[in-house]
Amino acid sequence: MERHFHEQLDTLRAKLLEMAMLAEESIALAVQAMVERENNKAQAVIDGDEAVNRLEVEIDERCLKLLALQQPMAVDLRFITSAMKINNDLERIADHAVNIATYTLALNGTDPLALAASLPRMADTVRAMVRESLHCFVTGNVEEARAVCARDDEVDVFDETLSRKLLSAMIKDPDAVTSAMQLTLISKNLERIADLATNIAEEVIFIYRATSIKHGQPFKDVRSR
Amino acid sequence: MERHFHEQLDTLRAKLLEMAMLAEESIALAVQAMVERENNKAQAVIDGDEAVNRLEVEIDERCLKLLALQQPMAVDLRFITSAMKINNDLERIADHAVNIATYTLALNGTDPLALAASLPRMADTVRAMVRESLHCFVTGNVEEARAVCARDDEVDVFDETLSRKLLSAMIKDPDAVTSAMQLTLISKNLERIADLATNIAEEVIFIYRATSIKHGQPFKDVRSR
Repeated sequence: MERHFHEQLDTLRAKLLEMAMLAEESIALAVQAMVERENNKAQAVIDGDEAVNRLEVEIDERCLKLLALQQPMAVDLRFITSAMKINNDLERIADHAVNIATYTLALNGTDPLALAASLPRMADTVRAMVRESLHCFVTGNVEEARAVCARDDEVDVFDETLSRKLLSAMIKDPDAVTSAMQLTLISKNLERIADLATNIAEEVIFIYRATSIKHGQPFKDVRSR
Repeated sequence: MERHFHEQLDTLRAKLLEMAMLAEESIALAVQAMVERENNKAQAVIDGDEAVNRLEVEIDERCLKLLALQQPMAVDLRFITSAMKINNDLERIADHAVNIATYTLALNGTDPLALAASLPRMADTVRAMVRESLHCFVTGNVEEARAVCARDDEVDVFDETLSRKLLSAMIKDPDAVTSAMQLTLISKNLERIADLATNIAEEVIFIYRATSIKHGQPFKDVRSR
């Protein structure tokens, strides 16, 4: 029974990694569709969301079954409820990739804008945050989780800087308005993905330290009272 | 013990209603700050987020405690895990209200734009969705939950129409660019709140019917397999 339970936790871990990989690939493909101006790649991201949604429901069912049948305690209980939240976060990350793909379809109908060139680097950072947040979830590396949280500010600055430049471009040149608007919305969606990866990293810290660092309470053990 | 457990579920319900009320008030105040061009109201929304965050952590702790100590089954288990998700959704709704307040601060430094006039009505619909999604969570009214889900399309159309008009205004008049950009971002945040209210309504249907209508599987019982 005990061994069986730990096998089921391993399967849950593997399924969440698979979910994260799908979400990360969706971000990569959406940004590639933007860089290469390939509408069919953007459409593939939109079509691929169905698989992510199915996996979300499957993982949720697994978690509920584990809670009902195994009645886990302490760290295992926290692990499973956090898995449910991380699952939800990953599904939303994939939704943001779909948004990026949709804005890319609008963008590809307009003249290219040089400012778009910086977005792939922002996307690389954001994808790394998603990957690393799941990596530390699997390994239980709390230090790595803290590093993911720290990178969120970097992405915020990136988004603010780019958004400001895009706004100036729009004011100077009416022909740039449509492209610059899509790029702004893509930047906002990447920034939101970084927020969600940060949430995941915070959950990891919570599972393994029973400490909530959410909402600026970095070291106070608010949940284990 | 059994009676004590049901009292704790009632407290959980009340806490979530309180959380929803805070989130809804934040949306209302953020939009009021925009209409009245009152920076101090926008700032109050930003400052008020701390209270929402504290309540989120408190509700999460309550749910974990109930799972650990009561080891609930069937509908009670689903109720508590769904409460954790709804709690998370409400916290994000409040985050979007903070975004709206932040964009309002930028907006209030620019000349007013007539197109802003339609946003309060959109905000009313979105607030009603938040309120009704929590109302049906408390009453278990699945029909009301379905009605909330149906209103999401209405908000999407509203956002698309307004975003298109704002883009035209930006192309025509460079002086309108800064305001129109903030209004577009406010519209996108309201649209995202409607998505989250829809998620909550879907959770309600899941709790009381053990049926997932998420991701376009309206009547198939995907979770109770």
